[in-house]
Amino acid sequence: MNLLLTYDVNTESPEGRRRLRKVAKKCQCYGQRVQKSVFECKVGEKEYIILENTLRKIIDPNTDSVRIYFLSETAIQKIVNIGNAQVIDYEDPLIV
Amino acid sequence: MNLLLTYDVNTESPEGRRRLRKVAKKCQCYGQRVQKSVFECKVGEKEYIILENTLRKIIDPNTDSVRIYFLSETAIQKIVNIGNAQVIDYEDPLIV
Repeated sequence: MNLLLTYDVNTESPEGRRRLRKVAKKCQCYGQRVQKSVFECKVGEKEYIILENTLRKIIDPNTDSVRIYFLSETAIQKIVNIGNAQVIDYEDPLIV
Repeated sequence: MNLLLTYDVNTESPEGRRRLRKVAKKCQCYGQRVQKSVFECKVGEKEYIILENTLRKIIDPNTDSVRIYFLSETAIQKIVNIGNAQVIDYEDPLIV
């Protein structure tokens, strides 16, 4: 399934900045960063469950927010990009 | 149509911070802010054209990025929200 994952993490404290890094690192395992706090991911059902559970554990539910949108293939093809965002084909292998 | 609008604006300069405020203000006319740089909007076709054109005029395409996703009703109903994000019914009138 195709996911769009957006997050706001409160970075006023060192712990917040740590959470932000953890969220970004975790998302990088599953997809491509298209903006600072936006990832487009392609995952299987099991991967999705792991991802969601991991994010629930990382964030502080009182101050942080993660939203996950399920995009259809049609929606993927209709994405409008204005400006400098790099669009990377997430079917390509990731170079780590 | 239901839009998800995400943006990254380079705020290193006063001009950038001005662009950021303009983008946010414009998006607020069309939908609900669900994260700092994420809006969920419901617009007609004409409104969409105006919105897209206005955003193209505001941003600096060399440093900023706006992405627009078209969400189906199914996708809207499946949104997963983790943490403190306020979910506001954007059918409700906005209080300014």
